[in-house]
Amino acid sequence: MALVTAMRISARALFRPWAWLPGGAFGRTESAARGGVGARGFGSQRVLVEPDPAAGIAVMKLKNPPVNSLSLELLTELVISLEKLENDKTFRGIILTSDCPGVFSAGLDLTEMCGKNPAHYAEYWKAMQELWLRLYLSNLVLIAAINGASPAGGCLISLTCDYRVLADNPKYVIGLNETLLGIIAPFWFKDTLMNTIGHRASELALQLGILFPPAEALQVGMVDKVVPEDQVQSTALSVMAQWLSIPDHARQLTKNMMRKPTADRLVKHRDSDIQNFVSFISRDSIQKSLQVYLGKLRQKKG
Amino acid sequence: MALVTAMRISARALFRPWAWLPGGAFGRTESAARGGVGARGFGSQRVLVEPDPAAGIAVMKLKNPPVNSLSLELLTELVISLEKLENDKTFRGIILTSDCPGVFSAGLDLTEMCGKNPAHYAEYWKAMQELWLRLYLSNLVLIAAINGASPAGGCLISLTCDYRVLADNPKYVIGLNETLLGIIAPFWFKDTLMNTIGHRASELALQLGILFPPAEALQVGMVDKVVPEDQVQSTALSVMAQWLSIPDHARQLTKNMMRKPTADRLVKHRDSDIQNFVSFISRDSIQKSLQVYLGKLRQKKG
Amino acid sequence: MALVTAMRISARALFRPWAWLPGGAFGRTESAARGGVGARGFGSQRVLVEPDPAAGIAVMKLKNPPVNSLSLELLTELVISLEKLENDKTFRGIILTSDCPGVFSAGLDLTEMCGKNPAHYAEYWKAMQELWLRLYLSNLVLIAAINGASPAGGCLISLTCDYRVLADNPKYVIGLNETLLGIIAPFWFKDTLMNTIGHRASELALQLGILFPPAEALQVGMVDKVVPEDQVQSTALSVMAQWLSIPDHARQLTKNMMRKPTADRLVKHRDSDIQNFVSFISRDSIQKSLQVYLGKLRQKKG
Repeated sequence: MALVTAMRISARALFRPWAWLPGGAFGRTESAARGGVGARGFGSQRVLVEPDPAAGIAVMKLKNPPVNSLSLELLTELVISLEKLENDKTFRGIILTSDCPGVFSAGLDLTEMCGKNPAHYAEYWKAMQELWLRLYLSNLVLIAAINGASPAGGCLISLTCDYRVLADNPKYVIGLNETLLGIIAPFWFKDTLMNTIGHRASELALQLGILFPPAEALQVGMVDKVVPEDQVQSTALSVMAQWLSIPDHARQLTKNMMRKPTADRLVKHRDSDIQNFVSFISRDSIQKSLQVYLGKLRQKKG
Repeated sequence: MALVTAMRISARALFRPWAWLPGGAFGRTESAARGGVGARGFGSQRVLVEPDPAAGIAVMKLKNPPVNSLSLELLTELVISLEKLENDKTFRGIILTSDCPGVFSAGLDLTEMCGKNPAHYAEYWKAMQELWLRLYLSNLVLIAAINGASPAGGCLISLTCDYRVLADNPKYVIGLNETLLGIIAPFWFKDTLMNTIGHRASELALQLGILFPPAEALQVGMVDKVVPEDQVQSTALSVMAQWLSIPDHARQLTKNMMRKPTADRLVKHRDSDIQNFVSFISRDSIQKSLQVYLGKLRQKKG
Repeated sequence: MALVTAMRISARALFRPWAWLPGGAFGRTESAARGGVGARGFGSQRVLVEPDPAAGIAVMKLKNPPVNSLSLELLTELVISLEKLENDKTFRGIILTSDCPGVFSAGLDLTEMCGKNPAHYAEYWKAMQELWLRLYLSNLVLIAAINGASPAGGCLISLTCDYRVLADNPKYVIGLNETLLGIIAPFWFKDTLMNTIGHRASELALQLGILFPPAEALQVGMVDKVVPEDQVQSTALSVMAQWLSIPDHARQLTKNMMRKPTADRLVKHRDSDIQNFVSFISRDSIQKSLQVYLGKLRQKKG
């Protein structure tokens, strides 16, 4: 219980007001710099937000190079950006995409899970849960413009959206491939996948850790549309227009009716899910594996 | 509680014996008039029943022109006709179809939901629940011969059947399009759809209020067969023959095993579902919208 | 309760140590006789086990001629063989197939359900439950190499596997066809099917007792791959290699997460499920039907 209480305070601190963030907050984004009309960008260091108030939408770009690892900072900034847009009546929809070439998001940040203390692991996992809960139940229309690979946590984030457009590039694989790394997708990853592609396909995809190339991803229902890479953004925009033609209130209540039972399962088991994660990741064997793996990654880079 | 008690009495009164119905009850139907052998028709004003005792089946035609709106009278007569056939050992199956050209059923009757008092709304919604429960758990084989458009409540009725044959006419769209009107499909509409087309397709169909043309309806699993318009009836008959080749008792128990958990959810929450409907529909904003909408419909007609 | 206690003891006796089995236990199998390298076979009278320790797999062949009826002996020997392999760290996967030409398994053994006493029926049903529970939750990778027809219980066994390869022969139909015989698939048969092909397809398949030929079985998702008959075994082996490339521990936990809720439903209702079976099968009408049916089978044979 002491752990949990500590985490709650820590988490509350995490979700501090937007304006407190250092770095790129309220800076001009590329699109604004390029002179888009009314496209005064805002955002944080790791989340570029390009608003289009006239259209009622914003493009939200993950920018945590090189591969948009879901670091604690990125998770936090995503939640804050999302909350900001949710609370601003101007916005009805978000297009979620990547600013890092070739990668939508590589998923969980292994450096957050290695060589730290249990309190840090707990804080990290709680932030991951928080992002999922807010994305999955968002009142805004969320369209994923998937312009790169999205394994594991990257896949999860796209699965929380209302619609997924994937660039037709064989390198842009998507899937919950946790088993390949010897780890297990948590039950709410599994639930999100099952709600998307059904029980049997999830059984295969999760056990085998399948990373689907675009055509297969489309066939199994992991994404809704595959288009040439240079049409991902425009397709996402036209899909968004279709979704925005639906009265918001009715759409939001319907979305909530479909998704709340799944979200409630995590809310109910949130603390035990954190404890499971912390005790799993704290194991010597897992820590050693991660160190070896990270060492290799650094060598490769260096 | 007083409201609920009152409704129960009122509902019991609704389901008065068949023979008390005025109008077309026990009259001769078209097919009987055309001299069909043994095809002595019976029915009510709004539900034509054409029995074929030798085959053990009856064709039940909705006849509430112009668009088979599910008025309180139609709901009531449908339940009574259904009950009559259920209780007659002669009959093992029903083909459900429309007597109104171009429309299977337009769904809920907006005039029942506008300018009336809460007791009326409650009575209306309880009748809608009652019809769904009886259709969804019917011991008879129900085949929908969908010879017209079936939005919203019309779609729901077809979804309760064991098999759906749709006429291949691009105007004959089918779907739960409630969000388009700014309203929300109740949870048991959603459950019925999810049992038919799965979670993800339901999420899209319900949020976007999609009305599927025949080819798309077939692809998503909203209907089981699409045939040329003049073959809907004959196809329904041959499908029925296949279903009737299965021993009734085993088929009925199997159907019940598949569907009862879904029906039980409504049974358990029936009163609160009525209260939700009544309080939603009684809102000033909703009443105003409905009046405007109905006004337009009348202008169009006049 | 007395019945249940008696059954428990009886069941414990059933699962007596492997070595106590008479007959073919620890005998040489055909493949060993044919001189396969390291393929020293073991098994029981009705279950041939061909181990390949180097590959970490075993082929398990049902051999209860002529049609692999699931007799009490076969069920018992299957559970024992399975347990033996589960407890031997050498083995990571099993290919389940038939030694009887043209039939994978014909399903429940009607002679176990006819003219016996309630205690026998209870023992039989408990053995069937036990086999299902152990197969469905097995930690080993199970690949079904379906080289013959697999109706009813035969279909169920294949559905417990992680992957199904079916020989492309129009006679090799697969499905839960219980209703055709006037009986009902138990809820855990239904659950297993729903987890494989979804709610709507299960509704159709179970009510109509559909036996799917290979192409239809593949389309509906009842099997994962259809190949020419002489490639069933080699395909199963290459699929197995893919599954064995996944770290065992992560795969096992993921499988358990997907399947345990379904298995738990039977565990929770196990006794009442046995009582339902016993009282159903003990009915005079059912006993007479079975006697007539068995009489015909014997005439046909004789």
